[in-house]
Order: sequence, then structure tokens, then C-alpha cells
Amino acid sequence: MSKTNPGHFFEDFTLGQKIVHATPRTVTEGDSALYTALTGSRFAVQSADTFAMDIGYPSAPLDDVLVFHIVFGKTVPDISLNAVANLGYANCRFITPVFPGDTLQATSEIIGLRELSNGKAGVVYVRSTGTNQTGESVLDYVRWVMVSKRDATSPAPEASFPELPERVGVEQLAEGVPDIQQNAYNRALAGARHVWGDYEPGEKIDHVDGMTIEEAEHQIATRLYQNTAKVHFNAHLQADSRFGQRLIYGGHVISLARALSFNGLANAFHVAAINGGSHVAPCFAGDTVYAWSEILEREEIPVRSDIGALRIRTIAVKNMDASAFPYKTDDDAYADGVILDLDYWVVLPR
Amino acid sequence: MSKTNPGHFFEDFTLGQKIVHATPRTVTEGDSALYTALTGSRFAVQSADTFAMDIGYPSAPLDDVLVFHIVFGKTVPDISLNAVANLGYANCRFITPVFPGDTLQATSEIIGLRELSNGKAGVVYVRSTGTNQTGESVLDYVRWVMVSKRDATSPAPEASFPELPERVGVEQLAEGVPDIQQNAYNRALAGARHVWGDYEPGEKIDHVDGMTIEEAEHQIATRLYQNTAKVHFNAHLQADSRFGQRLIYGGHVISLARALSFNGLANAFHVAAINGGSHVAPCFAGDTVYAWSEILEREEIPVRSDIGALRIRTIAVKNMDASAFPYKTDDDAYADGVILDLDYWVVLPR
Amino acid sequence: MSKTNPGHFFEDFTLGQKIVHATPRTVTEGDSALYTALTGSRFAVQSADTFAMDIGYPSAPLDDVLVFHIVFGKTVPDISLNAVANLGYANCRFITPVFPGDTLQATSEIIGLRELSNGKAGVVYVRSTGTNQTGESVLDYVRWVMVSKRDATSPAPEASFPELPERVGVEQLAEGVPDIQQNAYNRALAGARHVWGDYEPGEKIDHVDGMTIEEAEHQIATRLYQNTAKVHFNAHLQADSRFGQRLIYGGHVISLARALSFNGLANAFHVAAINGGSHVAPCFAGDTVYAWSEILEREEIPVRSDIGALRIRTIAVKNMDASAFPYKTDDDAYADGVILDLDYWVVLPR
Repeated sequence: MSKTNPGHFFEDFTLGQKIVHATPRTVTEGDSALYTALTGSRFAVQSADTFAMDIGYPSAPLDDVLVFHIVFGKTVPDISLNAVANLGYANCRFITPVFPGDTLQATSEIIGLRELSNGKAGVVYVRSTGTNQTGESVLDYVRWVMVSKRDATSPAPEASFPELPERVGVEQLAEGVPDIQQNAYNRALAGARHVWGDYEPGEKIDHVDGMTIEEAEHQIATRLYQNTAKVHFNAHLQADSRFGQRLIYGGHVISLARALSFNGLANAFHVAAINGGSHVAPCFAGDTVYAWSEILEREEIPVRSDIGALRIRTIAVKNMDASAFPYKTDDDAYADGVILDLDYWVVLPR
Repeated sequence: MSKTNPGHFFEDFTLGQKIVHATPRTVTEGDSALYTALTGSRFAVQSADTFAMDIGYPSAPLDDVLVFHIVFGKTVPDISLNAVANLGYANCRFITPVFPGDTLQATSEIIGLRELSNGKAGVVYVRSTGTNQTGESVLDYVRWVMVSKRDATSPAPEASFPELPERVGVEQLAEGVPDIQQNAYNRALAGARHVWGDYEPGEKIDHVDGMTIEEAEHQIATRLYQNTAKVHFNAHLQADSRFGQRLIYGGHVISLARALSFNGLANAFHVAAINGGSHVAPCFAGDTVYAWSEILEREEIPVRSDIGALRIRTIAVKNMDASAFPYKTDDDAYADGVILDLDYWVVLPR
Repeated sequence: MSKTNPGHFFEDFTLGQKIVHATPRTVTEGDSALYTALTGSRFAVQSADTFAMDIGYPSAPLDDVLVFHIVFGKTVPDISLNAVANLGYANCRFITPVFPGDTLQATSEIIGLRELSNGKAGVVYVRSTGTNQTGESVLDYVRWVMVSKRDATSPAPEASFPELPERVGVEQLAEGVPDIQQNAYNRALAGARHVWGDYEPGEKIDHVDGMTIEEAEHQIATRLYQNTAKVHFNAHLQADSRFGQRLIYGGHVISLARALSFNGLANAFHVAAINGGSHVAPCFAGDTVYAWSEILEREEIPVRSDIGALRIRTIAVKNMDASAFPYKTDDDAYADGVILDLDYWVVLPR
């Protein structure tokens, strides 16, 4: 039997199957420095031990999105090496802050399977969980991917779909946020005066800045996460693909959109949950990413008077600025230039 | 009112105004590793804890120029986001060594304002100070930038200029240098036999090597410093600019020139002060940077018999080697190819 | 006398000469993070403190090949700055594991000299040793390089050759490997079921994946090792060279081949020795590297029942996949596309 992993096909997955993913990873200040250098993120809590400790953290935690990428990366060899498409995310919760020195592992469970009507591929629904060295869950999320069948004639499994919430409930958003010392939260150092109560549902914010992506940058970022998806790294193979070139890991676009959102959301110091996300169009080296956000909901978090939650839709676009808030066309299709539609909860001081 | 920062205009600055800059930053071994990887610097004191400890440091300090970049980066959103040009630096002093684990913050004071005669822009003089987590100053410097006016008809402030020294005084150069154990200073490990007394004013040194800069490299470096200047990152916006492409952060050229200067100045283990600097011409991805230096002064430092100071002019050039010591033409203009003119003090063992 | 290092010529070397190389280097978690990001390596022992500690290490050691590059880099200014060609490696032994916080230094001894018959250059044989801050050897190896003569008329030294083993003896392979707790070695987390006994001499493994190299990536990697060889960094100079462009440090190809070999050799957690290596053809930015391996020997290691050794030949190729196991042609020349032929010992759990 082959000693190499060619990736799994649709037939290889069974409902309820549990997978332990390879290569635990001790995250370090080196990962944080690289993440800053690759994204330009400027949120004070993740940047400075002093700021984090002043408000109640034991030290600066890792960027939430960095934690997501590391856990996600571990799942790739077992779940999505043969994925035709990454269809969506849901119910992603950031449960426990992660600090330099922690070691992350990942496991997954197959929670839904549905063969396509053409019999050539199927959709696999997976719940993946990242844990730290003490076994605490730090992150879990559901994603669904379209995976090729090895053999179009093999029988279809009974179709099953997980129930997925439209959004993570507000009662779950404070997990992993220590009690925040509001008096110690220095808005000048954080970069903006506007806190939770200053945002209104329906408000739109253009994040102004743009960031051009180079091949070396997305490759370095994606390898940092030990993500092995071939499409991001292999120009020789991709030359014969539909796009003729390497595809940028969609998570890198999420990272850039989050980093750009600092300009307008500087006090949104924690991504508490991702309700859903779609990579609407591919992104290539040389593209310039801009972003804008709409406040979807402003909600109190039960029994927390220190912090509140904003549900946000952040839209990333490429090669056009976001001042016109491009989103969808009259027929509900995404407008040209839109590459990411991300629906998530952030936490701000009150 | 907008929640995003579009940058300040000339009218927004007032004499004596004080600004607290956002995003404190805990610097780490990750930053040092990246700085080495981006510049190729090889000075032993900053590279090895053992070497640093042997001569009197508690551990290897961060590269002085890296500290400058991190403090400078914090000032960009408040000072120079709308800068037309970065006109100069003066009176930059490296006061306290910075070690991994320290947290840097930055503040600025407006110390001069002068409207241009055409009424369209003005020059803003700023003194910026970086401090560590105990409140000690680690670095201060003056820079002046040309900033657009929001409205050409708004009245001009009374013109004011700060007094700036031609060069930092020698009595200030040992701040932040511990007593150096000269017997423990191993020249073989440091990389050269030549110490302070071996250099003569007027001596010129070609640093020989050249370094080609890629877009990904200067972007990664400039984001590491959380510097947000659009011109370095946004190819889409820059396509319509005068140069048609991204501009490399001038500080990256300073870093490369300093790193290249190791070949000829390996024992110049500390940049003590920058007396002045000009980015003479822009640098773009694909350019190859070379450097040469002239010893301007060799001075004792009061009450320090362990170390001495050299005042140096380092000239960086692009796409030509520096063996002919290119500098200025007969009419005192900079010669073609010159991109940086940096006048600074370094400290060497005696 | 010049204060800059123009590199040494063949006449500058004498048999038995010992050289202390400059710039000791404290290696850190920052170096490990960057190495992961530049190579995509996924071996669990080097990735996770928990995994390393469970099986008997005090913490996750640095990647062996990273240690090699850092020691090698230190030797470049003194040995190979004027090298015409890097001819080969032999007898490279990884003796002591290296951990973040260790400081590496390097020394070399000239162990052979042989002038070419044309009198224009000679071959220099060097044994280089890396040591840590306690003076322990962590690595030693022999390499031989062709170095230009300063003056073709200068007299030739008496030809001398070191005796070099065809391969490092198995009794030397366990140096620096702690007693491995086999029960604690978790194959699921390590990424594969196959351990030492599952491999057979003659077995060939295609490592499947390919990695495209960008200029920024190999430059960042090579500077991380403080390797100063001009050919890797100076596009301006290289424009007039035989290849018209920068050459990728051969060591970066070794790193990629080792990282790619995870897919098929995930439990080969330690490179114990390099028996020999040839950079068969140059590699340039834009090239995509693939790799395959052949098991040459499977050997027990004396008095160690916990681990065993595999002698492996890994072949890296470019711009073609490795599924056909390209190696040599009928006339014993390397096949087109082959860029690296590496003969080395790895250690696996039994």
C-alpha cells in the first residue's frame, strides 16, 4: 500500500467518522511576528502584552484568525486535498484564547454527506475542533467541501445534512474573553474612540486601504499554517488548471480583510465567531484587496456589562476600492470584484 | 463622523500639539528573526546572546534600526498618511537598548509648522519619542514632512522652525551602551580586526555587496513595523501615481545599507544617533542596492575609555556598484543612482 | 589594507589551517516559525513541544536542516565567497539536538588542497563544525569547493585529499537522539502508520507534491542563515553571469526536498547524517520542485531498540513531477530535470 497521501475521495468518508489530524503545532511569538508581517494587523490586544494584561489577559493572545488558519491547515490533508471547492463555513466559535507556547491539535467529525446528482462528486460536511495542550477546545467550526468521487459508479450514501444555525448565539460570544477592565482600556492606544455603543445596525464602513498580494506572501502565510493544498503552491501543476495559475488561500483574504478593518473597527479586539463565509471569487497574486463592512446587529452579551457584540458583514473586493460598498447586483448575484462575504461576530468594550 | 482615519491635513496640526500613537507593540525574538531574514544583518551583538552577554549586555538587543522602524511606523497614521514627501530626519538618538519582551509605544509633538508659498501644502516638524513598558525613552528623533492642505484658502499659521543640531553631540552617544568588557570582545567572532582607532576621517569604504529587493520583501518588512503608508502596499492605487508602481519604504533602504556596511564596519555594533538623512531618489522592486561609507569624524566619548564614536556618511546607490563612491555632481546635486544619504554615529570598541 | 572582505582565493588556504567564522547566532522560535513558513515542513517532533517531550526530548528541537544551513552560512564569507562551484558534501553528522535559545558558532579546518591542471583554480576540502554555547559539537561535515586562484602563475601546493567515508557508520547515527518512548510516539499525530520496519531497501516513494519557489522566498531563507553568497541576492551582478539571473541556494532545495518527503516518510523524524550530496543543476525562481526517494539501506543502530535507521537517496527534480522516478540516463549522466541527489540517513521509531 502506498505510503503517501494522495488525498481522500468522497467514498472514503462515512457519517460519524472521526479523524485525528497530523502534526500538532506549538505556536510561538515567531508565528505572531510573521502574521503581523504578512497581514499588517494592528489590533492592540494581540500586539502588546502590556495592553492585553492591563485589560485582563495574562499576555497578548494570538490573533484569532491565525488560530483558525493553523487548525484549518491541519485538516487539509485529510479533508480537502481533493476538494473541488470549499463551499462554506458555519458555526465557527473561538472558545479559548491561545497564547505563545500553547500547542494546537485538530480533530474532525464527518457530520453530513450528500452526493451530487451527476454522481461525480459529493459534499462532505465536517465539524473540526482545535484543542490546546490541556485538551481544552480553542476553536470549532463546520465547513463543507465538494470532493471528487474515486469512481462515479460507486453507490451514493444516504444523504444527510447537519443542522446549522444561521448565526452563533450571543450567549456563546463571551467564551474565552476574560473580564475586561474597561477603565484600563486605553482608546488612544487602541487606535479609535468608537466603542460598542457607537455603532448602529445598517451602518456601513469603508476600510479605505488596499493591500496588494504577492506570490511569496500568500505562499509563506499558507505554509506557516502547514496547509498543504496543492493549488496554492504548485505553479507547474496549476498551469494546466482552469485559472492557469496558483490560487491564493481564501483564508489569506480573510486575514487581510480583518487587518484592513482596523481602520474603522480598531476596538473590535476579538473575533468571537464566524457565522458564515463564502469565497465568492478567486484571488491571484498581483490582486489588490480592499474591504468594507456593514453592521448587521448590535447585541448585548448576557451577564457581561464590560463588552458587547457586533455582528458584521465584511466584504472584500479586488482591484477596486470599496467606497461604493459593492456587494450584490439586482439579481442577487455578487457584484464584479467581490471576493469574500464574511458574516461574523466581534467583541468590543462598552 | 467617519470612524475611519483618512489621514491628517496641514490644517489639522498645531504648534505644541501632542499625539499618542496607536498600537503598542511587544517586540520579540520573532521580530529579530524576521529582521535578519529581510536584511541579512550580521552584527554579532544583535545576533548572539552569548556575544552580547560577554561584553556587558543582559542579552542580545534588537537591531537599532529595527527599533527605529517600529517607532516610526506608529507615527505614520497620525503624521504622514497624507504626506507629499518625507523631507528629512535630524537629532535621532538611540537612548536605551531594546530587548525581546519589551513593549514599545510612541508619542509625538508638533515642533514647527511652515506653509509653502503656494498655499497648497505645508511642512510639519515633529519630534517623536519611543518608550518602553517602564516609560523609559528608547529613541527620539525629529522628522519633517510636507503635508497637503485640505483647503488652499485656509489661513496659514505663523511660521515656526525648531532649532536642530547639525549633529548629535558626542556626550550623548553612550546613552544605552553598557560598559563594554573589551577583553571579552572577540574580534574573530565579530567579523573584523578593525576597531575604533583603525578608522581615519576621510576614509572611504566600499561595502562591496549588492542586494536586490522584491515586492514581497519590502511589504513584509514594512508591515512588520505596522507602517500603513499606502504607497508601499497598494499597486492598484499606485498605478495612477507619478511612478506607476509601489514605492519601497525608505527605511528598508536604510536597513539594507546598514546591513551591507557590516562588510567594512563589522565592529560598529551600535547605531548611537542619526544626524540627518535624505531619501534622495525612490527605490522600486527589482532594484539592487549597494552602499559605501565615508568616515566623517572619529571622536572619543566623554568618560568612556571602552568605546569610541565614528561619524559616518553612508550612501546607498541602486543598480550600480559603489566602487567609484558615487555621491554628488559638480553642481552639488546628487549623482544618478544615489538613493540615500545618511549621516549617523556608530559606536565601536577601542 | 582593505577593511572589507573580498573573499579568499585558492592561494590563501593552507593545509591544516583553522578558521573561526564570524557572527555567532542565537537560534529562536522565530527562526523555527520562519523555517516552517519557508519550507512547509510538518514533522511533528520539530513542530510541537508536546510531541517532542512525550517521546523524550526536553522540547521541540530545531529542524536538522535549518541547523545545517545556519552553520553553513557562517562558513561562506571565509570559504566560498569566490567559489566557482560547490562540488560536494560528505560525512555530515548531526551530533547534538539544537533548541531555541542555543547559540551556534562555526569553525573550519582545511583538510585537503588540489590545484586544477589548468592552474586557474583549485579544490579546497574543508571540515566545518558547528558548536553550541556550551562548546558541544552539534554538527560537522566536509565539503569541497572549487576556488579561483588570484594568480594563475603562483605555485601549486602539494596535492592532498582527505579520506572520506562512503557513508557515515550506523554506530554514529544515534548521537543526539534521546531514548525514544515508543509507546508515547503517536503515529496518528505524526502523520503516518509506517515506521522503520515497514520500509524495504529498493523501495521507491514519490513524494507527490510540488513547490514553486519565488525570489523573495529563497532570499529570505538564505539571509535567515546569514549566508552571504552574492549569486543568491544580486540580480544586477547576475545579469552578466552565465545564467543571467540569481541562483537559488542549493540548501533551499535540500530543505524543500526534505519537507516534501514528509508525504511518505512522516516518521523519519531526524536527519542523522548526510553521506553525500550534489547540486546537479541550478534552480531559479519560478521553478517548481518535486522529490522522490529510494530506500538504500535499512539498518539497526547498535544498542538502540527504540529506533532504526534508513539510508535514503532523495532526488529533487524541477518542473516535472517525480512519479517516473527520474534519476540517471543510460550513460550514467543525470536525467534532465534532476537538480539534487542527496544520500542521507534518517532515524525512525521501531
